[in-house]
Amino acid sequence: MTEESERARRSECESEFESEPTTEIDVPESHPRYQSLLTRHRIEHGVEAGITSKQGLIAQGRGEAFDYLLGEETIPSADAAERAAAAQLLLADHPVLSVNGNVAALVPDELVELADAVDAALEVNLFNRTEARMEAIADHLRAHGAEDVKGLTADARIPGLEHERGKVDTDGIYEADVVLVPLEDGDRAEALGEMDKAEIVIDLNPASRSPRVASIPIVDNVIRAVPNITAHARELADADSRTLERIVDEFDADEALEAAEERIRSGEF
Amino acid sequence: MTEESERARRSECESEFESEPTTEIDVPESHPRYQSLLTRHRIEHGVEAGITSKQGLIAQGRGEAFDYLLGEETIPSADAAERAAAAQLLLADHPVLSVNGNVAALVPDELVELADAVDAALEVNLFNRTEARMEAIADHLRAHGAEDVKGLTADARIPGLEHERGKVDTDGIYEADVVLVPLEDGDRAEALGEMDKAEIVIDLNPASRSPRVASIPIVDNVIRAVPNITAHARELADADSRTLERIVDEFDADEALEAAEERIRSGEF
Repeated sequence: MTEESERARRSECESEFESEPTTEIDVPESHPRYQSLLTRHRIEHGVEAGITSKQGLIAQGRGEAFDYLLGEETIPSADAAERAAAAQLLLADHPVLSVNGNVAALVPDELVELADAVDAALEVNLFNRTEARMEAIADHLRAHGAEDVKGLTADARIPGLEHERGKVDTDGIYEADVVLVPLEDGDRAEALGEMDKAEIVIDLNPASRSPRVASIPIVDNVIRAVPNITAHARELADADSRTLERIVDEFDADEALEAAEERIRSGEF
Repeated sequence: MTEESERARRSECESEFESEPTTEIDVPESHPRYQSLLTRHRIEHGVEAGITSKQGLIAQGRGEAFDYLLGEETIPSADAAERAAAAQLLLADHPVLSVNGNVAALVPDELVELADAVDAALEVNLFNRTEARMEAIADHLRAHGAEDVKGLTADARIPGLEHERGKVDTDGIYEADVVLVPLEDGDRAEALGEMDKAEIVIDLNPASRSPRVASIPIVDNVIRAVPNITAHARELADADSRTLERIVDEFDADEALEAAEERIRSGEF
């Protein structure tokens, strides 16, 4: 299929799916719903680019509801988790940032910046793996400045997961000592956690399995969490290992999950 | 475009959007996630049938999160609201059930049964109105047994809404004395409420504007709420007007919203 006919077909599919044109977000940053409108705009663009799935849109909605209950802000325990994540990534010998469709759609620039700040690899890793989506996501990351995108080699498996779900790169997630998995499925978060890696999970539902199996669970919106990990990493760039280790050790995962639950329960409706 | 080429194009679009085939739900009813898996299955079929929009998928996810916090069950205050809704619909001279894409995808049979039980009209009414989606939803309802589907005439307007958003049928929502609007947008729920109608809203977020402007807000999953309204209507079929009026009068909307908020805050995580 030529690029042009592919584009024509895609545009036809979009108009089938939702008829109004997608326009740039036309609200000022001061608008109380700016962040949620921007988030939704990016995720819808993700569908058009072939990188966000139907499941991804539903997951986005679940996240919106939890974020709403959290007050749509980075709560202090999440900021502490983001600082610990930055320290953990800086301490790593071989850190990898795992990227799925929603994450690529929501924070492509921010992921490239974080990978740069902590010298980590980016690896595309999908729950519903198809070559077309893998390529679309890798292309999207490259268009946002990523130089080396892993995940397409798929020459290793995460133990305990069925074949397609477990595919990873040997020199990527398989051999990583620290993995950041934003918006990860519970089974895979658990299987990764059993591989003797430090696992950092970003998830807006403090009760879902992924943050519960993580060594560092971050209950925050990826759109706020990823740039904040980068900001902490830049601030800690010159810190010695002892300082970084102390930051990681002082972080208490259970306490952070409890604080998030508490916030969700007591937040303003 | 022939029906066959239309089907071929649609199937191509689906494979573009999500590659795995949609199969019938293959889990027993006793499965703890049965209802949420069935719900998701129906909504995804809605996308394939051209009746659920991207916004609809995101809204579905938000609903899932609130339903999860509610315990995925009809709480007593919601059951009371559903009983009051049944009484209100039975008392009506001209009741209309408003149907959008998600509602049509999730509860087509159940809507037809409710319309039958309370002698109400069904009217397709979309936030993102396009003729193609209007027709697809009307076809879907007819395939599930609806005889008369309103909404396509669009010869009246709800005051206070921009042109496309406000389109309704004169002999449908415009002249209705009682309207059931499940999963409605806040602006439209408010505009309808100002038209001197009794408005019944189904919404899983007790803090969103639609249930707050409703005369009878139902904080429940449509997949449970609609059949439960029907069950109450059948039980009340022979009740006299005084009994029905007492049921409506005794229902307290603010109390029901507070009970739902309380449940969300105190539910098991």
